Amino acid sequence: MAQSVKTLAASLADHPVLGPVDWLLRGIGQVVFQNNALSGLIILLALFFNSWIYGVTCLFGVAIATAMAVFLKADRELVRNGLFGFNGALAALALVAFTSADFRTGAVPSGLMMVYIAFAAAMTTVVFQAIATLLGPHKVAALTAPFVLTGWLFLFAVLKFEGLEAGPLIKPISPDQFDAAAAYVLPTWYMGIGNAIGQIFFQDNWISGYLIIIGIAVNSRVSAAMALLGAAGAALVAALFGGPEGAIRDGLFGYNAALTAIALGGFFLVLTWRSFLYTLFGIVVTTWLWASVAIFLKPIGMPVLTSAFVLVTWLMLLGQYGFRALVPVPPAEATTPEDNRQRHLKAMAKRPG
Amino acid sequence: MAQSVKTLAASLADHPVLGPVDWLLRGIGQVVFQNNALSGLIILLALFFNSWIYGVTCLFGVAIATAMAVFLKADRELVRNGLFGFNGALAALALVAFTSADFRTGAVPSGLMMVYIAFAAAMTTVVFQAIATLLGPHKVAALTAPFVLTGWLFLFAVLKFEGLEAGPLIKPISPDQFDAAAAYVLPTWYMGIGNAIGQIFFQDNWISGYLIIIGIAVNSRVSAAMALLGAAGAALVAALFGGPEGAIRDGLFGYNAALTAIALGGFFLVLTWRSFLYTLFGIVVTTWLWASVAIFLKPIGMPVLTSAFVLVTWLMLLGQYGFRALVPVPPAEATTPEDNRQRHLKAMAKRPG
Amino acid sequence: MAQSVKTLAASLADHPVLGPVDWLLRGIGQVVFQNNALSGLIILLALFFNSWIYGVTCLFGVAIATAMAVFLKADRELVRNGLFGFNGALAALALVAFTSADFRTGAVPSGLMMVYIAFAAAMTTVVFQAIATLLGPHKVAALTAPFVLTGWLFLFAVLKFEGLEAGPLIKPISPDQFDAAAAYVLPTWYMGIGNAIGQIFFQDNWISGYLIIIGIAVNSRVSAAMALLGAAGAALVAALFGGPEGAIRDGLFGYNAALTAIALGGFFLVLTWRSFLYTLFGIVVTTWLWASVAIFLKPIGMPVLTSAFVLVTWLMLLGQYGFRALVPVPPAEATTPEDNRQRHLKAMAKRPG
Repeated sequence: MAQSVKTLAASLADHPVLGPVDWLLRGIGQVVFQNNALSGLIILLALFFNSWIYGVTCLFGVAIATAMAVFLKADRELVRNGLFGFNGALAALALVAFTSADFRTGAVPSGLMMVYIAFAAAMTTVVFQAIATLLGPHKVAALTAPFVLTGWLFLFAVLKFEGLEAGPLIKPISPDQFDAAAAYVLPTWYMGIGNAIGQIFFQDNWISGYLIIIGIAVNSRVSAAMALLGAAGAALVAALFGGPEGAIRDGLFGYNAALTAIALGGFFLVLTWRSFLYTLFGIVVTTWLWASVAIFLKPIGMPVLTSAFVLVTWLMLLGQYGFRALVPVPPAEATTPEDNRQRHLKAMAKRPG
Repeated sequence: MAQSVKTLAASLADHPVLGPVDWLLRGIGQVVFQNNALSGLIILLALFFNSWIYGVTCLFGVAIATAMAVFLKADRELVRNGLFGFNGALAALALVAFTSADFRTGAVPSGLMMVYIAFAAAMTTVVFQAIATLLGPHKVAALTAPFVLTGWLFLFAVLKFEGLEAGPLIKPISPDQFDAAAAYVLPTWYMGIGNAIGQIFFQDNWISGYLIIIGIAVNSRVSAAMALLGAAGAALVAALFGGPEGAIRDGLFGYNAALTAIALGGFFLVLTWRSFLYTLFGIVVTTWLWASVAIFLKPIGMPVLTSAFVLVTWLMLLGQYGFRALVPVPPAEATTPEDNRQRHLKAMAKRPG
Repeated sequence: MAQSVKTLAASLADHPVLGPVDWLLRGIGQVVFQNNALSGLIILLALFFNSWIYGVTCLFGVAIATAMAVFLKADRELVRNGLFGFNGALAALALVAFTSADFRTGAVPSGLMMVYIAFAAAMTTVVFQAIATLLGPHKVAALTAPFVLTGWLFLFAVLKFEGLEAGPLIKPISPDQFDAAAAYVLPTWYMGIGNAIGQIFFQDNWISGYLIIIGIAVNSRVSAAMALLGAAGAALVAALFGGPEGAIRDGLFGYNAALTAIALGGFFLVLTWRSFLYTLFGIVVTTWLWASVAIFLKPIGMPVLTSAFVLVTWLMLLGQYGFRALVPVPPAEATTPEDNRQRHLKAMAKRPG
């Protein structure tokens, strides 16, 4: 039965119409490391649940980025796994989010802005391949760096052109704007965790966040648990060090940490107790460094995006082969934490004793 | 006859006096990717046409950088092709341009400033080799990155020393200083295109710009056409998105795009219709990202230099071997778009059918 | 006798208690490239001479960073040579120095701040391995880059958390705050040179600086001389170009240049007359670029740390194999300038003909 599902999935991916749909849905899932069309579909619905504008924007971004990859004849396997699409989705979402009068629901972009967004999404494909080339020898993935780099570059430039509406929100969503005196209450936590997951996709909606968790869980329960752990850990660290209540409730400290947790917690490193501690370390550091990047970008008023996640995860994975306490999973072989661990245990068992 | 010209050129390059002159002129040509002494000579005359100070500064920079390479016993072939010189020429021009009371003509620097400029030009040689080492495995050229990096570092520091006159122009030449309401007229276009080419060498003189185009054309008409296409495309994109008329007329949006167009348009990628579309994509993105870098540098008041060109061209070339729609030309084999294409077609013809 | 000392040293390094002590002292020595426990001990005493708080902080940082390396099962040889420790020591010192009310003596950090410092020190271990992985193929060392990167990231973030006291000194220690009119007098020089060496370890105490020089000299007199040459050269260049007297006397222009001088002056390049001139060039450029980085960081109010040293030394070493005038010493083989040169001369003598 599992076999026939796989065969069905494979023949779907080759279908002239359903094939590309499969690539796009996987692309949406890949934002949170889930190479699974159903995960992508649930996440897309979570976006539509918050705002149809964001839902359409997400589809637009992933489609343009994937089309650019097809035009440039990129590696077919990567295209089919959605790896050229997810940064495009995020770039499109970011440009709509930060140029709309209302961040929460977004606004329909002008014609010129749509052209601009399309170029940004296409550029993520070029940047993805460039970063993959640079990091390839070290077996470290590009993560969302193509989105962060392209997002920043295209967001900065918006301010220079009369033809593009910058909106009121081009500024780091930073703790400064929140009341420092507010007390931590129950909603700080359950809304903070949900919002953190939502913020990965620019969704300021905690219910969408939990829907996204379900999307992750259909492919990997460990990854879903890690996402929750990252978001919760970040909220806890931020509270412990006196971060403002409003920022914690909005999930600002947590969306980078949640991604770090998924990446290190079983996906790029086999889950062991040492790598679990290493993941906890990464969650704490990512929480602080989100604040750090926010300070760095303050003079030019730019958002952090997922740069703290990219920076910490890169630094913690680049040296992976130098630390014998870790068991790296090369990006090309990474599937789910469950599967990665099983393959590792099997390989260990086969070793002569 | 072509053969005897080549022999003559080769024996010239070995001449104890004329040899180095040949290296320096090629160095000037290399700023716009023309490994041709005549191109370099015409460009030098275009600079003298605008201001003898810039002409002498250019020679000073290229000579110091090349001398540093000889002192350090760098690769002889690279020295002879002017590859150690062009970043030195640009660094010297930048330091004079941004510390002079009048950017247009420049001013004769003080003795201390001359020492400072000499060190900056020599440093570009060190940085060129460093970047070449890093990018070598990916077959991507250093471009003008050594100039951009050294230029920024030496320009920032000027502000800290009483002994160096910073001049009024240490600030990004940014669209903000122009009247947003001015209408686009005919001179916007023909002056804007000429100025964009001139700005590559810090020449705020549109006639010098067209003289430089002639310098490029004696070596490669395709490259000359690409330079014009890049400058014109940038002006068009800027106008479409509401960039200020004065900035377009001054060529500010276009000098990075012109370089991107030469680099991608046949020089580092064999010219095909797909790589042509890729070049157009690069021109548009470079135009926007010039604005983006200007915003990023605004808090510290630094000029963009050619960083947008370097950034976009690197990103678009680093992944070149991952895109089967592109035919890369390794830097060591790149000559002219015409020649690159012919060699490729010949190699294709030889392939068994 | 030399042999038996070596044997003794080796057995010490294996001792369950004295072994780790040996690693930590070597770690302190490695800040100034001295893989020697006695050097480390003298430097530690120089810190205690200025302030017991800094002495303890230094030990805390080097211990945590080394413990992290042991937990992650990093290369045992590198751990024993103190290479995982020295960036941790610097990160801890920086965090105490820049968050204390009095930079000169430091203050005992709060409990939360201690946790924060411990994470920062542990993070330098991760970053060290990451950078070593990236630079390994080019045979260039990570230098103090892990400290600079981690230091910046953790210092920026301090400003975001109520629970961490930022102190009055989070700002670049920049020449601006000094009286530009003060004349250069004798103490400008002898205090300036001593302070420059002290500032490497955040010690605003010129006597501590000269004690550190003694610590270096017990392992290598050439390195000690280079450190003095770097500090003196920087003071001279700064004075020549009109740097403020107070900044020169405080050693601010010199601490990066002193490190560049040790690194290039015989340690990573065999000492010849050409590499000596190359080192002088590096000293001058580092002095200017310290000012440059200070300007770049001014909008966010961050200190330069040793970034100018890292930047210049990396740029000057990355291309080392492209310059036949230089004789590189791979990091794994670099011991002392004296020893590096002797090995090179021996290898030359063995060559036929």
